[in-house]
Amino acid sequence: MKMTVLLISVAVFLITGINGFCQDTPVSPATEECLDCHATIHPGIVGAWKSSLHAKATPEQAMTASALSRKVSSPSVPEGMETVVVGCAECHTFRPDAHADTVHHNGYRIHVVVSPQDCAVCHLKEADQYKKNIMSFAEKNLAENVLYQDLLRQVIGYSIPENGKIRFEPADASTRAEACFYCHGTRLTVQGFETRDSDYGEMTFARIDRWPNQGVGRVNPDGSRGACTACHTRHAFSIEMARKPDTCMQCHIGPDVPAYKVYMASKHGNIFSAMNASWDFGAVPWRVGKHFTAPTCAVCHMSLLIDSEGTVVAERTHQIGNRLPTRLFGLIYAHAQPKHPDTTIIRNKSALPLPTDLDGTPASDFLINPAEQAVRTQNMQSVCLSCHSRKWVKGHWKRYEDSIRETNAATLSATGLLKEIWRYGYAQNSDSLFDEAVEKKWMDIWLFHGNTVRFAAAMAGGGDYGVYANGRYQLNQKISEISEWYLLRKRIDAK
Amino acid sequence: MKMTVLLISVAVFLITGINGFCQDTPVSPATEECLDCHATIHPGIVGAWKSSLHAKATPEQAMTASALSRKVSSPSVPEGMETVVVGCAECHTFRPDAHADTVHHNGYRIHVVVSPQDCAVCHLKEADQYKKNIMSFAEKNLAENVLYQDLLRQVIGYSIPENGKIRFEPADASTRAEACFYCHGTRLTVQGFETRDSDYGEMTFARIDRWPNQGVGRVNPDGSRGACTACHTRHAFSIEMARKPDTCMQCHIGPDVPAYKVYMASKHGNIFSAMNASWDFGAVPWRVGKHFTAPTCAVCHMSLLIDSEGTVVAERTHQIGNRLPTRLFGLIYAHAQPKHPDTTIIRNKSALPLPTDLDGTPASDFLINPAEQAVRTQNMQSVCLSCHSRKWVKGHWKRYEDSIRETNAATLSATGLLKEIWRYGYAQNSDSLFDEAVEKKWMDIWLFHGNTVRFAAAMAGGGDYGVYANGRYQLNQKISEISEWYLLRKRIDAK
Amino acid sequence: MKMTVLLISVAVFLITGINGFCQDTPVSPATEECLDCHATIHPGIVGAWKSSLHAKATPEQAMTASALSRKVSSPSVPEGMETVVVGCAECHTFRPDAHADTVHHNGYRIHVVVSPQDCAVCHLKEADQYKKNIMSFAEKNLAENVLYQDLLRQVIGYSIPENGKIRFEPADASTRAEACFYCHGTRLTVQGFETRDSDYGEMTFARIDRWPNQGVGRVNPDGSRGACTACHTRHAFSIEMARKPDTCMQCHIGPDVPAYKVYMASKHGNIFSAMNASWDFGAVPWRVGKHFTAPTCAVCHMSLLIDSEGTVVAERTHQIGNRLPTRLFGLIYAHAQPKHPDTTIIRNKSALPLPTDLDGTPASDFLINPAEQAVRTQNMQSVCLSCHSRKWVKGHWKRYEDSIRETNAATLSATGLLKEIWRYGYAQNSDSLFDEAVEKKWMDIWLFHGNTVRFAAAMAGGGDYGVYANGRYQLNQKISEISEWYLLRKRIDAK
Repeated sequence: MKMTVLLISVAVFLITGINGFCQDTPVSPATEECLDCHATIHPGIVGAWKSSLHAKATPEQAMTASALSRKVSSPSVPEGMETVVVGCAECHTFRPDAHADTVHHNGYRIHVVVSPQDCAVCHLKEADQYKKNIMSFAEKNLAENVLYQDLLRQVIGYSIPENGKIRFEPADASTRAEACFYCHGTRLTVQGFETRDSDYGEMTFARIDRWPNQGVGRVNPDGSRGACTACHTRHAFSIEMARKPDTCMQCHIGPDVPAYKVYMASKHGNIFSAMNASWDFGAVPWRVGKHFTAPTCAVCHMSLLIDSEGTVVAERTHQIGNRLPTRLFGLIYAHAQPKHPDTTIIRNKSALPLPTDLDGTPASDFLINPAEQAVRTQNMQSVCLSCHSRKWVKGHWKRYEDSIRETNAATLSATGLLKEIWRYGYAQNSDSLFDEAVEKKWMDIWLFHGNTVRFAAAMAGGGDYGVYANGRYQLNQKISEISEWYLLRKRIDAK
Repeated sequence: MKMTVLLISVAVFLITGINGFCQDTPVSPATEECLDCHATIHPGIVGAWKSSLHAKATPEQAMTASALSRKVSSPSVPEGMETVVVGCAECHTFRPDAHADTVHHNGYRIHVVVSPQDCAVCHLKEADQYKKNIMSFAEKNLAENVLYQDLLRQVIGYSIPENGKIRFEPADASTRAEACFYCHGTRLTVQGFETRDSDYGEMTFARIDRWPNQGVGRVNPDGSRGACTACHTRHAFSIEMARKPDTCMQCHIGPDVPAYKVYMASKHGNIFSAMNASWDFGAVPWRVGKHFTAPTCAVCHMSLLIDSEGTVVAERTHQIGNRLPTRLFGLIYAHAQPKHPDTTIIRNKSALPLPTDLDGTPASDFLINPAEQAVRTQNMQSVCLSCHSRKWVKGHWKRYEDSIRETNAATLSATGLLKEIWRYGYAQNSDSLFDEAVEKKWMDIWLFHGNTVRFAAAMAGGGDYGVYANGRYQLNQKISEISEWYLLRKRIDAK
Repeated sequence: MKMTVLLISVAVFLITGINGFCQDTPVSPATEECLDCHATIHPGIVGAWKSSLHAKATPEQAMTASALSRKVSSPSVPEGMETVVVGCAECHTFRPDAHADTVHHNGYRIHVVVSPQDCAVCHLKEADQYKKNIMSFAEKNLAENVLYQDLLRQVIGYSIPENGKIRFEPADASTRAEACFYCHGTRLTVQGFETRDSDYGEMTFARIDRWPNQGVGRVNPDGSRGACTACHTRHAFSIEMARKPDTCMQCHIGPDVPAYKVYMASKHGNIFSAMNASWDFGAVPWRVGKHFTAPTCAVCHMSLLIDSEGTVVAERTHQIGNRLPTRLFGLIYAHAQPKHPDTTIIRNKSALPLPTDLDGTPASDFLINPAEQAVRTQNMQSVCLSCHSRKWVKGHWKRYEDSIRETNAATLSATGLLKEIWRYGYAQNSDSLFDEAVEKKWMDIWLFHGNTVRFAAAMAGGGDYGVYANGRYQLNQKISEISEWYLLRKRIDAK
């Protein structure tokens, strides 16, 4: 840590002059050229970059840090890149042949979309882990699952009234990019190139379909998956920002995945909100009780933590499943985490691409087994145990597991009702599970209320989110409403 | 900027002694007298004022700032006011004959309600712009539109059950002031004066109907419209506070106008939340990439911005429409901004005071034309382009415009269903569009879900707010529910 | 204040060495022993404690503070405890015979659950006040009220479908602890003891049912009620944290009690959000206009406030009712505060344990009278008057009282409809008020929308929370829906 601070101090000392840099700063000539124009055209992103560690230390300097403090995980960095700071050109001219969006630009071959494969030059371990992170498949898992394609149609599609009945047509590419794929990531495909005049003369640009996007499962023009900038926001790429819950909130705020809301209402969120101004979000490794006194999202799920002796409490991971035994949200029933990040390969006993059947039976061949769940539980609990006794953690975990069983049972009750409704033809037996009003209410139960209850249990954010804030109250209310509607339909038919 | 800082330092140096001021500070004798009592009676507001620039510099000092840094926009300030700080008496004894609430108070003629017309003495340009801001007509536009009078009755009125059916009676003045007009502003009218004993002897007070209020379209006892304190909260009148999204949130948080929520979940909001502790919210002009690295509400909609060279990126405006081509919220369909801030003059082709017809046809004579929309689009995009490429901005804008078309089309689908329902008499053909349960569900569609989707698109706050957090999911769900209810009614009738 | 700062400086100066302490710091030998292991095992909580005032000053030092600044309210502290800082052993080995969870642990008799009765050794006045705080009875008032037992069953119970109809079974202990009793507090009972191996040898632990919990009405193994750590989060026990709204938010965020949301959208919340980074949350007493410029939850409800002259504006209280004339939330009708914190003794004229009848008639014998309401109103208004004129406060209060009458009247309308529905047997005459879909919608009206409107009025957080954000719009919408459903049932029956 002290080494890093020292390096930063040295680097800061060097950074002065034109564009904030003097002749002898280690900024590459190519980046200098970029800055000559872009510092004025795009002051926002250049300002952000100037505040970044990328602008303040070279890879060579960064690699002198001790093992636990080191942020550059690659064993080595290509010659020429080691001794200059990581500027515009270092990322945007890297591997030009690999990027379908590469264009000639003022004598350089640049690409707009920097991918995890580019970042891997310095951050190899993180990029490799991320490939195994289910998030990196977020685009594919949604777009290439036939059942979810129907879900998409019913949820974000266009309504067409026909004799009083509504049919939903698939959403267009803009809506898809704006809605689900905003977080899941879009598939960026280069449609061609165009040349136009600019204030700086004639310029060539790639036409990239479904751009812009920074979703976690973005498919990049080099074929890689993901966008590091989803969390390490360009162009500061700040570890401080990535470690703050505000970052996770971008995609984890809705009723389907209210992680941020639940966290903020938990005791941990309370401590964070009230005290974080005095925490050190930049420290690597992150020392429990010194740099922070309550967990954030990153603390529990990703960060490298040490105790007061410097012993590692938890290893850094960019494979989010490593500390997660169970998948709590997004599906009909909570279930063991999938074995593989590509969930399109899963088939339940009804041959549908779902991790459980409609009756909750898990598609066990595709899910991690209890032994692996135990390992991941231990990974997570090692974080809990930095502040809590074993009895405390055990008591908490019991409730968490109980809430999973309980909400799965409630979903089964609701599904049972729905099956009767289907049997009587009250919801027409169309091809879709998600198109009728009563089916959408059934979705509320597991997608919103079951999820919320489980999040509340997982983060000890109980109280309101476990009950009245989209929790058990609404879950039971909607089961009652489905039942009431079903009996009303029966009553009408009986007349 | 440096000049301002210097002036503040000088002023701060002078401020000491009784009430925090010594004999030779430029506090007027009248204000000194106010402070003699009110520093003790009202320590909260005096404390806030002491922290303000008003307490720290005289208009004369403030007017020495360079053109872009200058906060006093009036060419001159009346003699006598120039050389004292802006204290209690300067505002509350100004133009006593203009204010219907003026009373005699310890030898002075003071008025409680300071209006934009008072502030105009120093801030003429802002006050003039604000007169053309649709916000300044927020009270009139709501209170004097016959259709909205009915909307008010159905939304905030009192329920009267009659044979199982509910009729809504208009809300009383207290409820109106507490509900819609809390943000829109109340009409302050002086009902008379009363004299009563106080700890400081007998005192006269104005009885002001619908006081207190700080709504943006408040009608003041001097006949002016607006309350600068809606955003520049009394008595610090701080530009820092006005520039923070928390301020806009006061009125832009509900499902009808979830601007704050969407912003906070956007990448911009993420950067703000995680990093704003190190930004300079007081700098004028506001330098992109130096004073801040992501936009807040004020950055995009109001503030004077410069780039790294000092070139103006966007002019300051208090006429919020200047950077807004389209009105996204509050009405059945999104549409081009109204030409005039007084929207009570609008008539659609059905002669109703609405900017569109029920089928979405715009009342084009009253709305800005495409050429003006293009100018305003460019005003807004000049802000975007400080950080983003033209391709990025174009891609973003395409989705934003698509979301407007898409949500307007969904509203048209729902309205089509409602028309059928009206035709069959399932919603009784009363005089109101808003009184039946099915009509209220139709309102949800455009007032909550259409709006939310458009805000999500506008601020790239996509993801949850575009889908599950009051977005497309609920929009499609409620269309399905209206359809389901309609077909159920038909089924019953057919028995 | 200066004294406190001085003491802290001295204490900080002394704190160095092993575990951060040198030989001559006033840490007790017992606490040193605790720290020897726990500093490494539980670095999070030890880190938090080290940042606390408990770790920085002895009771003897703290008691030298002037009357208003003094945080130790007990007239004296037992010998031996006065001259050491308040460390692990001071709390966890205190009164071992009183705690049913006391175990032998490395030569000490320690208990895990520190109770308000332990804290009372130094903070006697606060502990005594808290005993009269309705919060301290939050567990009993919910668990031992027969009507609420049924409410619990319908709200958090398990759904059992039977011929299309849903019956709710009572929730199990885990769900209860995870849901309502997370905030209300659980009843901690010691089930026995167990001995197991640990990294530090064989250890004995108490098996405590319903642990962990930090709810405000927790019943502790020593028989006392409450958990100071609900607000003064362990192990920093920070007054700063307790004074921040984030702390209250833990239990006051859901639609049933949206205090935090309403506050944040109010002008007061706006000032807090935008400016609190420069406030002093640790100052005791808390000076209006100097240490803060807008109220937080604590300012209005609990804290000791002084004006610019040092005169007391409001006394500190841990009996929350002291400044509250009316109970706004949680029940069918708003009503005068209960006389006694134990509300299980209340009987309405129908002999039900409710503070009003179904028609709104208050159970006056059990509620405070108008004279007492006036005293409490004055207590609260003395805070308002630190920043606002009497006219302002009167105007605000008139709206607040109007909103109580108005929402109670709306609830009466809805209850009238429900009574008709019961009369016709459309909601089956079961034993429960809360089990049918239409009854759950009736609950929404008073539990969510009536409450929200009243909170919005109380905190001048009007606007959205008074209308579209769970306010009057939804209240009127749901009355319309109940009416519509009732008339539909009649129509079906008439066929």
